[in-house]
Amino acid sequence: MGLYELREGRRFLVRVPRGEELVAHVDDLINEHGIEQGFISGIGAVSEATIGFYDQDTHEYRELDLTGGIEIVSLLGNISQKEGRSHAHLHIGLADHEGRMYGGHLSGARVFLTELVIVEFTGRELERVPDEATGLVCWP
Amino acid sequence: MGLYELREGRRFLVRVPRGEELVAHVDDLINEHGIEQGFISGIGAVSEATIGFYDQDTHEYRELDLTGGIEIVSLLGNISQKEGRSHAHLHIGLADHEGRMYGGHLSGARVFLTELVIVEFTGRELERVPDEATGLVCWP
Amino acid sequence: MGLYELREGRRFLVRVPRGEELVAHVDDLINEHGIEQGFISGIGAVSEATIGFYDQDTHEYRELDLTGGIEIVSLLGNISQKEGRSHAHLHIGLADHEGRMYGGHLSGARVFLTELVIVEFTGRELERVPDEATGLVCWP
Repeated sequence: MGLYELREGRRFLVRVPRGEELVAHVDDLINEHGIEQGFISGIGAVSEATIGFYDQDTHEYRELDLTGGIEIVSLLGNISQKEGRSHAHLHIGLADHEGRMYGGHLSGARVFLTELVIVEFTGRELERVPDEATGLVCWP
Repeated sequence: MGLYELREGRRFLVRVPRGEELVAHVDDLINEHGIEQGFISGIGAVSEATIGFYDQDTHEYRELDLTGGIEIVSLLGNISQKEGRSHAHLHIGLADHEGRMYGGHLSGARVFLTELVIVEFTGRELERVPDEATGLVCWP
Repeated sequence: MGLYELREGRRFLVRVPRGEELVAHVDDLINEHGIEQGFISGIGAVSEATIGFYDQDTHEYRELDLTGGIEIVSLLGNISQKEGRSHAHLHIGLADHEGRMYGGHLSGARVFLTELVIVEFTGRELERVPDEATGLVCWP
């Protein structure tokens, strides 16, 4: 079924400092604090961002760069293991100064102010493995 | 007030297999595993989707079909009881290959890869009932 | 680091009544029920909404008014303390009847039907304080 039952762990509220690269910051944070599986959500603003769209035929990412002061409308994702480290898979919805929204896989972003909620799941390890059918690295 | 306090139940990470219809898959999964109330979120990609917009005057849904490889930027919703079965009410934000976003009520979607977080709530049953004022089936 | 570990508290499903102003309703609800920190998410529909975009240079909000029946695709945020009261910081993604999405900081909205999930965090108080660098009121 691809369904994994875990146990509740710790929970965190996090302010990501201005100027940080968001993806690297989350990666450092979850590895430093030993958060191996979980749920992550966030809101805030970034000064620039790169979002990706996976081409389901060619199995390559296309990317879009946004600049100029952007609201994080929704940051949603999960935490699991990938190549022996904790890994956050994050998708993001962003709004420009007219309110128009752009979204996709979060490749990178420069933080203006970002507030995260992290809920840790424990009790078993969930590790991503390469998946030939999609070309992605997925839960088995 | 319409406020219902519940207790924490199980929590799950779920990979929905490629090719599945997402709404039917979630419905099967929550009924099979006895998840009666809860929170659900997800990210991923679908190959096609139908989203709905409720006309608040005529009380009818209008629908939009999207095709061509679409990112799930945000899947958010709740689980409660409807006509004696577990029911997931899901809204979805989708991005096309230019990053432009479309969203609404999730009527149906064909999965490319979808990862869900489900947090079960227990301790009381919450059942949807028809609501004349909105024309929807709501918590009392 | 700006990372705060909290303990799990209560959890709630909430139906916000039609006609309510969403931001004021959430504010009343969390203060009345003593929810001091937490995670909040929601879906539904509103009849009108005002969303804001923070200008990172001038430190002023610009606003956009939407009317005409709008889906709440994603309501995401957190609860913490501000000036001695519980405060919800909420961002929202909205879709019009063509499915086009607009998003930003939620300034206000008139509810048609809104369903919230609230997860309370306890164990320590997290209070917002003025932050000169961003011009916002942030976690320290």
